[in-house]
Amino acid sequence: MNILWLVAHPDARSMTRSLADEGAAHLTELGHDVHMRDLYALNWDPIVAATDFGHDPEERLFVARAAKEAIDAGRLSADIKAEQELVLAADVLVVHFPLWWFGMPAILKGWFDRVFLHGFGFGIKDPETGTTLRYGDGNLHGKRGMVVTSVGAREASFGPRGIHGELEQVLFPIQHGIFHYTGMEALPPLVVYGADRSTEAEYALAAARLKERLSVLGELEPVPFRTQDGGDYDADLVLHPHIAPGATGLAAHVADTCVRT
Amino acid sequence: MNILWLVAHPDARSMTRSLADEGAAHLTELGHDVHMRDLYALNWDPIVAATDFGHDPEERLFVARAAKEAIDAGRLSADIKAEQELVLAADVLVVHFPLWWFGMPAILKGWFDRVFLHGFGFGIKDPETGTTLRYGDGNLHGKRGMVVTSVGAREASFGPRGIHGELEQVLFPIQHGIFHYTGMEALPPLVVYGADRSTEAEYALAAARLKERLSVLGELEPVPFRTQDGGDYDADLVLHPHIAPGATGLAAHVADTCVRT
Repeated sequence: MNILWLVAHPDARSMTRSLADEGAAHLTELGHDVHMRDLYALNWDPIVAATDFGHDPEERLFVARAAKEAIDAGRLSADIKAEQELVLAADVLVVHFPLWWFGMPAILKGWFDRVFLHGFGFGIKDPETGTTLRYGDGNLHGKRGMVVTSVGAREASFGPRGIHGELEQVLFPIQHGIFHYTGMEALPPLVVYGADRSTEAEYALAAARLKERLSVLGELEPVPFRTQDGGDYDADLVLHPHIAPGATGLAAHVADTCVRT
Repeated sequence: MNILWLVAHPDARSMTRSLADEGAAHLTELGHDVHMRDLYALNWDPIVAATDFGHDPEERLFVARAAKEAIDAGRLSADIKAEQELVLAADVLVVHFPLWWFGMPAILKGWFDRVFLHGFGFGIKDPETGTTLRYGDGNLHGKRGMVVTSVGAREASFGPRGIHGELEQVLFPIQHGIFHYTGMEALPPLVVYGADRSTEAEYALAAARLKERLSVLGELEPVPFRTQDGGDYDADLVLHPHIAPGATGLAAHVADTCVRT
């Protein structure tokens, strides 16, 4: 397989970067091709700007529209185009970062802002039906996405009733909003807890868990998010009343959800 | 009141920026002081780096620790320190952005990454008990936070059973993870739907809704998130079994949550 691995940490000696290196080496040993994108080392520019689209600065910028026009006209900024080509060539996208304020570091968020544009990450229409393809279908259908993240907090506090919010739901904007939205299968995230205080033994355990996970990257069961066009949603993209009746919130969009009583 | 308004959009003629200007003018008319921080106009640097902390590049960088040391030693980067002083002087923080990939644009996410550091936004201890103050208490206790955001999708698709996820839960990382975490009261978000297609009449309606909201900024009821030290959580920061029994996921952390049957 071809694995595109995005990693974002300001220090090359960090646990995050060390795990990325070990993970990549392991995948290579298994015979896979790994493209490591270390966004700090690349000095990645995370800020969406009119210049990305060769857009006339005298004209008002509608970001989605300008992006689509730039893609169609072949005048998208070269750095963005290069990343899009890496994505298209990949079978798996690994998104690896320390959780900062319950989300991606800015340099990584801005990779998605700039690369997953209208006409690439969203706004793809089925040529026959005119339906906008998303949530289970889209430009990246057939690929898989996996988050690898580290958090300072302990595991219980990110559990189903932990104060930080259930981790799978805190990551919903990435798992469902980016992976599933663009057509990718969202794999369960790999999380390293208590990362600020980790000992060498804990690091070794995290590395072992990561390698174990990477060994089954192609076979892992994805999160069973409901698909837009699978019959669960109505024309307004709202769950039909008979689907998970009474359930609301993020968990309702996972097909094996059960109503809690 | 003193209102710090963060806004992030690449075009000064955008709906986002126009609404910010109208909102600020309205607050000024009402007698409030507004500090507008237009992150694109400021050319804000969103990337956490060792240089923020005067950190020796030969030494491994532990971000939280280096930030705390830099604050204590008075060697934090001047641009960060200036923003922290604006936050401390503010009564209300307005965070205004187009929703990109279900979160903040990178330039804005990186404002929180760089400004809300260990020793400022988190890791604040009660000097008497040694408890870490968060979720209802902390350095920013007594302030209020409000999200103003625009999305391309229609309202139903962000409703309780809408495909994009219930908007209040999609914004949980900001509402609960940033505002409530740092001790601020999280106000209900103001959301403009269908923003990509909005007509002049729809813009006028959005501006009117915004002004109406801003007129009651001091009196609005915040989201009743449970507080860390209010008795609902155990020592592992997990909800006690008798609190919202059986409830899991993000909604369990809102005090008026009910178990759905």
